Amino acid sequence: MQLTQALKRAVQVNRAGTATRFGDRHRTWEQFGDRVARLAAGLRGLGVRDGDRVAILALNGDRYLEFLFAVPWAGGVFVPINTRLAPPEIVYWLTDSGASVLFVDDNFTDILPRIRDDLERVDHLVYLGNDAAPAGMTHHESLIEGSAAADDAMASGDTLAGIFYTGGTTGQSKGVMLSHANLVSNALFIVPGIGFDADTNWLHAAPMFHLADGCATIGITMVAGSHCFIPRFDPDAALAAIARYRVTNSVFVPTMVNMLVNHPRLADYDVSSLRTLLYGASPMPEAVIRRAMQVMPRVAFIQGYGQTEAAPLMTLLPARYHQPDGPDADKMTSAGLAALGIEIQILDADGRECPPGTVGEICGRGPNVMLGYWNKPELTAETLRDGWLHTGDGGYMDADGFLYIVDRVKDMIISGGENVYSAEVENAVYQHPAIAECAVIGVPSDRWGEQVHAIVRLKDGADLDEAGLIAHCHALIAGYKCPRGVSFVTDPLPLSGAGKILKTELRKPYWEGQAKQVH
Amino acid sequence: MQLTQALKRAVQVNRAGTATRFGDRHRTWEQFGDRVARLAAGLRGLGVRDGDRVAILALNGDRYLEFLFAVPWAGGVFVPINTRLAPPEIVYWLTDSGASVLFVDDNFTDILPRIRDDLERVDHLVYLGNDAAPAGMTHHESLIEGSAAADDAMASGDTLAGIFYTGGTTGQSKGVMLSHANLVSNALFIVPGIGFDADTNWLHAAPMFHLADGCATIGITMVAGSHCFIPRFDPDAALAAIARYRVTNSVFVPTMVNMLVNHPRLADYDVSSLRTLLYGASPMPEAVIRRAMQVMPRVAFIQGYGQTEAAPLMTLLPARYHQPDGPDADKMTSAGLAALGIEIQILDADGRECPPGTVGEICGRGPNVMLGYWNKPELTAETLRDGWLHTGDGGYMDADGFLYIVDRVKDMIISGGENVYSAEVENAVYQHPAIAECAVIGVPSDRWGEQVHAIVRLKDGADLDEAGLIAHCHALIAGYKCPRGVSFVTDPLPLSGAGKILKTELRKPYWEGQAKQVH
Repeated sequence: MQLTQALKRAVQVNRAGTATRFGDRHRTWEQFGDRVARLAAGLRGLGVRDGDRVAILALNGDRYLEFLFAVPWAGGVFVPINTRLAPPEIVYWLTDSGASVLFVDDNFTDILPRIRDDLERVDHLVYLGNDAAPAGMTHHESLIEGSAAADDAMASGDTLAGIFYTGGTTGQSKGVMLSHANLVSNALFIVPGIGFDADTNWLHAAPMFHLADGCATIGITMVAGSHCFIPRFDPDAALAAIARYRVTNSVFVPTMVNMLVNHPRLADYDVSSLRTLLYGASPMPEAVIRRAMQVMPRVAFIQGYGQTEAAPLMTLLPARYHQPDGPDADKMTSAGLAALGIEIQILDADGRECPPGTVGEICGRGPNVMLGYWNKPELTAETLRDGWLHTGDGGYMDADGFLYIVDRVKDMIISGGENVYSAEVENAVYQHPAIAECAVIGVPSDRWGEQVHAIVRLKDGADLDEAGLIAHCHALIAGYKCPRGVSFVTDPLPLSGAGKILKTELRKPYWEGQAKQVH
Repeated sequence: MQLTQALKRAVQVNRAGTATRFGDRHRTWEQFGDRVARLAAGLRGLGVRDGDRVAILALNGDRYLEFLFAVPWAGGVFVPINTRLAPPEIVYWLTDSGASVLFVDDNFTDILPRIRDDLERVDHLVYLGNDAAPAGMTHHESLIEGSAAADDAMASGDTLAGIFYTGGTTGQSKGVMLSHANLVSNALFIVPGIGFDADTNWLHAAPMFHLADGCATIGITMVAGSHCFIPRFDPDAALAAIARYRVTNSVFVPTMVNMLVNHPRLADYDVSSLRTLLYGASPMPEAVIRRAMQVMPRVAFIQGYGQTEAAPLMTLLPARYHQPDGPDADKMTSAGLAALGIEIQILDADGRECPPGTVGEICGRGPNVMLGYWNKPELTAETLRDGWLHTGDGGYMDADGFLYIVDRVKDMIISGGENVYSAEVENAVYQHPAIAECAVIGVPSDRWGEQVHAIVRLKDGADLDEAGLIAHCHALIAGYKCPRGVSFVTDPLPLSGAGKILKTELRKPYWEGQAKQVH
């Protein structure tokens, strides 16, 4: 199994068909394939050798997709960087992965001067924009124009294809190593699961650095469908792109779905081409999906559940189970059934399968399960045990094989589709001298699914208000990780027998009266 | 990738749904899964250990499917035996594979006494029928009843899963070694290629020992559809089964399609449930497929091309290209496009890709390509070169990626969906003392696609007629391999520069005026 096979097939079976549409730019599969092979040659010219890491920090676009195929074509390993990270976090990811080349688009060239000195191992910067390349950067187009097509490096199977980081900097950040077989397997599960074919016209609206959209990068290419792009999600941009490109499929996180269906001018856009919307990556409020089904009655909604460690798909809730009423109504609150080639089990603490209805840890086994964490063998051994990926998610399965997720990944908060590790935010909060005790939890948010909330006890005599604590955090971590609200308490926080703060207790008052969250 | 994952998924997601229907016997996926795990325990009780070969000689049925999952569940390797072989050929396959257990149904118990002494390595015979087990045989049901469910041996990936023989005994017979990953990959290409889902109701009408039907064994299980069986193809039995079980999909070789569409009582059967028919494994006369489309206008026809060495699928001609008229009419004479995860190229003698329209050898690369030939490392090295499976089929690709097959596998004859190696038949012919020179070729047959024809020159003064030669062959090889016609010539057969008989020349007069055959 080989990422580049998907591209070669698309060029062979749909040579003159549309590969990419981005703004006014349109390329056929033949053109796209030629550009990838030449970009790969350009990468080799920059010194990229088998297994070398090549990073990208950019919004969505056709060149991002070229990058994602050119790197494996050259034998390299791609490292997509979260576009919402703070500069120190970007430095950490680049340094940890040891990337030797970094691709950057116009939106991020500004931060380069601030981090350039910290990037000792990055030998080359490649500019992805439309203008002339800034000083010290090589233009993406000049790498293509200046090279003859390279031979495919033929990396495949268990060879490392990409490193996808989850989390941030403070001991929480983990580079998930995914092989060619991992990513191609996932695509093979997605294709029939969603029904991709050569007529599928995919909109890359969710960020391409994240594997929720990454499913389509390979899957749509494999079936020789078409890729359309908007740089970042915005309801008007997404609706306009759907109308303009006659988009048939996309993936949206619940906050995006929410913005679309509540958009005051939704009716002004022609979305009649839309066949299927995949949603996932964070809890979907039931009211939102019901409204989405009402306002887009011809669209089939499919829920996906997974994690980066599973490349990422683990379960799918097919459209036929989106029935708010009737005998299968309760299935709609589930995360669906095991994807095609994956084994899903709920295991107890001893690694035994839990009976239906009993909560345990959601575990998965299959060709999509990661190789491990980059440079973290202990964490890998902890996560991949007896052949099972231990997701850290709590859940149960009903007697029909439907998976219900009942708890966050340990204490992770999923806000607007982004994973926020509470421990990392707590580390930032704790750096303020006024803080005695702190716990960061996710609380319900209509906009983000969950939002980050800090519960703090100040030191005796200390003086700090909500705005002050939030500003303190903004100096240390990415904006989306910062608390959006702070509760000040005077009693010590509740502790478990083992001395850990009982976050379940802290979360309770915020979640009371809310429908049980499923994601 | 693991064969048993498909079964475990089916049990999990469609526990109470129909797994198998055979005659009046009906079993749910839960029952089927339980029977497989207990049969696997029974196999271990017979001494089957990891990697041990377990053979089967039986017509189609639900127990055949149980066998195909129980053997990998027990860690063994299945060896499906062609049901049309002559006893010495059966002995050869069993001996060559070193099978320690042989499953036999009522149709083949008669031959056991004739071959029992030759089967030194076969320790146990298992009876698959409905009566009491004959003396010396263990009953399939008693293996199940007498055992508690075994744990899955968890064989997967590149581990050998099955040996599928092609050809016969006389130096031509080759055991194709297919791994778990080979067979599961193939299923993952088939599922979206044909559109299998949980509502698919498959009729096993083509022989289950052959991989044309084997595609569905795993694919239908993976999607948790249903399996129906008839012991062997017969147009009335097939039509009755389609009506009775509301069959949605099946695979037929062209001769079967021909028998169906020309069946005088076709209109008496309700075939309205049929959605899709896959056909392949031998050349499809254009008149037959046109007629099939006429008499079954609501059925989507899909052509598959492949070979056992590719587990077996290589290309698919989707239903949308079955348009006898219009701009895509010429595509209907092709074998279609590369299956999803496979790379197909036409290579010249130097291993370079041929340009569109140029005939070369059809080659394939992907996770479905066999591990190699059992105990034949030289032949393996000859067939798998530079990562490419060399099919031995000649063909070309058009500029749109459609594959056209223009020649037989070397000198193989495909008669009624069975591969006949001409060299093997020639060996039999040559064993007659009257033969001076002989070449066996395939000639057109309305019934079989091709039929075996011998061209012979007798020794001076020798006396032999057609019936005598055919009778001589019947004593040595399976009936379907024997010549159906003989031409006696007096001039020496035409030779190539290298001294090989020019079969292309011999074939010419028989094929003149025939539409160019596609595979």
